[in-house]
Amino acid sequence: MGIVVQKYGGSSVADAAGVKRVAQRIVNTRKQGHDVVVVVSAMGDTTDELIDLANEVTPLPPARELDMLLTAGERISMAVLAMAIQSLGHEARSFTGSQAGVITDAEHGKAKIIDVTPGRIEAAINEGAIAIVAGFQGVSQTTKDITTLGRGGSDTTAVALAVALKAEVCEIYSDVDGIFTADPRIEPRARKIPRISYEETLEMAAQGAKILHLRCVEYARRYDMPIHVRSSFSEKEGTWVVKAADVAADAHEGATMEAAIITGVAHDRSQAKITVVGVPDKPGEAAAIFRAVAEAQINIDMIVQNVSAAATGRTDISFTLPRGEGQTAMTALARLQDVVGYERLQYDDGVGKVSIVGAGMSSAPGISARFFEALSEAGVNIEMISTSEIRVSVVVAETQVQDAVNAAHAAFDLESDEIEAVVYGGTGR
Amino acid sequence: MGIVVQKYGGSSVADAAGVKRVAQRIVNTRKQGHDVVVVVSAMGDTTDELIDLANEVTPLPPARELDMLLTAGERISMAVLAMAIQSLGHEARSFTGSQAGVITDAEHGKAKIIDVTPGRIEAAINEGAIAIVAGFQGVSQTTKDITTLGRGGSDTTAVALAVALKAEVCEIYSDVDGIFTADPRIEPRARKIPRISYEETLEMAAQGAKILHLRCVEYARRYDMPIHVRSSFSEKEGTWVVKAADVAADAHEGATMEAAIITGVAHDRSQAKITVVGVPDKPGEAAAIFRAVAEAQINIDMIVQNVSAAATGRTDISFTLPRGEGQTAMTALARLQDVVGYERLQYDDGVGKVSIVGAGMSSAPGISARFFEALSEAGVNIEMISTSEIRVSVVVAETQVQDAVNAAHAAFDLESDEIEAVVYGGTGR
Repeated sequence: MGIVVQKYGGSSVADAAGVKRVAQRIVNTRKQGHDVVVVVSAMGDTTDELIDLANEVTPLPPARELDMLLTAGERISMAVLAMAIQSLGHEARSFTGSQAGVITDAEHGKAKIIDVTPGRIEAAINEGAIAIVAGFQGVSQTTKDITTLGRGGSDTTAVALAVALKAEVCEIYSDVDGIFTADPRIEPRARKIPRISYEETLEMAAQGAKILHLRCVEYARRYDMPIHVRSSFSEKEGTWVVKAADVAADAHEGATMEAAIITGVAHDRSQAKITVVGVPDKPGEAAAIFRAVAEAQINIDMIVQNVSAAATGRTDISFTLPRGEGQTAMTALARLQDVVGYERLQYDDGVGKVSIVGAGMSSAPGISARFFEALSEAGVNIEMISTSEIRVSVVVAETQVQDAVNAAHAAFDLESDEIEAVVYGGTGR
Repeated sequence: MGIVVQKYGGSSVADAAGVKRVAQRIVNTRKQGHDVVVVVSAMGDTTDELIDLANEVTPLPPARELDMLLTAGERISMAVLAMAIQSLGHEARSFTGSQAGVITDAEHGKAKIIDVTPGRIEAAINEGAIAIVAGFQGVSQTTKDITTLGRGGSDTTAVALAVALKAEVCEIYSDVDGIFTADPRIEPRARKIPRISYEETLEMAAQGAKILHLRCVEYARRYDMPIHVRSSFSEKEGTWVVKAADVAADAHEGATMEAAIITGVAHDRSQAKITVVGVPDKPGEAAAIFRAVAEAQINIDMIVQNVSAAATGRTDISFTLPRGEGQTAMTALARLQDVVGYERLQYDDGVGKVSIVGAGMSSAPGISARFFEALSEAGVNIEMISTSEIRVSVVVAETQVQDAVNAAHAAFDLESDEIEAVVYGGTGR
C-alpha cells in the first residue's frame, strides 16, 4: 500500500483529548499498512490567541515577525501529536514546514508554494516512522525567512506534500462529515455529496461555502490528487473531490445521476454592495471608477451597470466586494467625484450572495429560470446576477439569504429524503 | 562602539507590558551607538505550561519532540519582542537558534554547543537591524533536529553568541539587581557585589546560589567574556563577572579591598544525605558502594567516612546527593546489602548546605576556623565539611540553614552597612 497524507484542523486537536483521539486514528491507518504523513494545524484557538498577543504589543505587527510568531502554533500541535503517537507504541517524528521542504516565495502572510522537497519526510517514512508536518508554513527560497501560506494554508500544505510524495490520497479532516449540498446550519435537509469535481468545489468555495481552501483545490486539480474530506469525529466516508470524469463515471454507475445537474447551493454573507449613482454615460467613466478601486487593492466580485436613462445621459454602476474592504473603496471613490462627476455613492452591507453550482448545468437548459422562479415564489428579490459555466449567483438582501438557500435547495431536489427517491426512481432509466 | 549582547529572562518578558519595557531598554542601548544582539527566553511560565501540555498527552514525552515543543516558547517571545522594537521605529529581526547558527550535539534536552556560526546575525547587524535570538535552543550538527540546552540554557546562548560575535560585554538581565553576598530573602543585610571572578561565581552557583547557569560562566571564563548581571527593572549597575586579575585590579583601586577575602555566602536546600551504617572496614567495600551509586547515574557531592570503631571493625559512610535522586540511590544501595554486608541505610532529606566563597581565602589563614566558630556561637551543628581552594562548605540541619547563613555573613563583615565602614577605614592602609 502507498502513502496516505492526512490533514487535521485545529478543531480536531483542540486539546490533549483531541490530540490523543487523532493519534489513535493515525495509528489505525498505519496498522492498515499505509505509510502515513500527517499535516496538522495549530491547536484550537492558538492562532487567534497569538494574533491577540501581537496586537497587545503593536497595532500593526510586521509581517515577517507575525509569521515567526504564528508558526509557533503548529510547532506545539505537531510535537504534542508526535508524542501521543509514540505513547501508542509507534515511531513518529515532527517536522517544521522548512524541515519538510516546503519552499515558498517571500510574501509573508500569504506565501505561495514554489517547490516541495520532502527528503527528510521520505527518509522518516523509509525508516518506518509516521511523519508529522506543520501545516500553513514554509521557508522563503530567497530570504530563508519563515513564511506562512495564509489562513487555511494547512490544506494546501497537505495537498502539496501529497503530490510531492505521490500519495494515494490526501485526507482532509475537520469537524464536519464532508461537503454538503448546502450549509446544514441554514438548510437542515442538506445532504452529504459523495463525489464532487474539483471545478464544482472551486465554485462552491469561491461562492462562500466554507469547505476547502481555494488554493488547495486548485493545487489538487492541477496535479489530479484526490482529496477525501471527512470528519475526525466519525469513521464515515466523507466527500471525495476528484476530477470531473471520475464523478461522471460514478454517476453512470447509477449512484446519483439525477443529482448531477446541480451539486449544491452556496451562500456568502461577507460581501457588501457599493453603487455609484449618476455616472455620466460616456466612454472611460466606468474604467476610471474601476481603476481607482483596483489601485486600492480591492477585490471586486460582481458588477452591474444599468441601462442609462435617455433623459439624463447618466447611469448607475453597482458592484460587490468583501465587507472588510468597503471603507477603503468608499474613500478611493470619494476622491474621484470631481474627476468623474458622479452624483453620489451608496454603501450597503446588508446583502448576501446565493449561488447554485453544478457541472451538469452547462448542458441542461432552463436552470437559471428554475432558480429565479423558485426565488420569486419564496418572495426573494434579486438585486444582481452573475453566471459562469457551472454556476449562477444572485445578490439578495441579507435577511433573505436563508429563504433563498432553502428555495434553491428544494427546487433542485437536493433534499436528503427526496434525493433517495429520485435515485431509486432513476436507476431503471 | 562595539556589539552588546543582552539576555532577558522569562520574568522580564512575562507579558505584553514587560515586552514593551524591554523593547524600550534595547532601543535605548541602540541609541547610545551600540550594535545590539538580544537573546530572549520564553515568556513567563510558557515553558512550564508546554511541559504540562506534554504530560497531559504522555507521562514520558520523547526528548526530540519535547525539544520541538519547548522551542515554541522562545519563538513566541522573540517574534513579539521584535514587533515591539519595530513599533518604536527601529528595525529588528528575530532568529531561531538554528537560524542564528547555534550548532549543538544531538543530546536532546541537554545539548552542548559545538559551534556558533552567526552569519545571519552579522548580516542583520551590518544592515543596521537589532537581532533577536531565541535562547535555550540550537540545531544538532548530525541529525539536523532541533535541540535544547536545558534549563537556564539561554544564559549560555547569550555568552556563546557574545564570544562568536566578539561582543564587548554580555549583559544578563533578570528581576534582581546582581549577585549578592547572600540570598537577600534569607539575609536581609546582603550586599550587591560590584565585581566577582568567574571562579568565585562558579563556586557560588555550584553551591546553590541561583544566579547564573554554571555552563554559561564556564563558557565566559574559557573565552574571557565579561558578563554584566543586572535587573531589567532598574538602570542601576549590576555585578560584573570578570577574570580574577580584573577583580584584583579593582580592589587595588581601593574600592572593596577588605571584602576580598570572602566574597559571598551560598546555600542549597536541594540536597539529601544517605548514610551507609556498619560497613565492614576492609579494602574495596567503599568502592563497591560508590560504583553502585555511579552506575545509577547519581551525582554525589560530599563524602565523609568515619574512623572505624576498633571493637567492631566497621565504619559508617555518609554522602550527599540531589534530593530528586535519593530514591534511585537507595534502591541501588539496597541491592548491595548481601554483597557488602553493611548493617543498614539511613536517608535524611532534612539537610542543607552552607558555603563561604572567596578568592582571597587561599592566602588568608584561619578562615575555616572563623567560619566554624561563628556557626558554633550561633548554635549550628556541623554534620559534614568539604573545601576547595576558594570555598568551605558545611552540611547542617535544614532548620539551621538560615542561622548559618546569617552567622557567616556577619562573621566575614559582608553586611552592607558595616562594609562601608571597613572600606573607609581600610583606604588609609
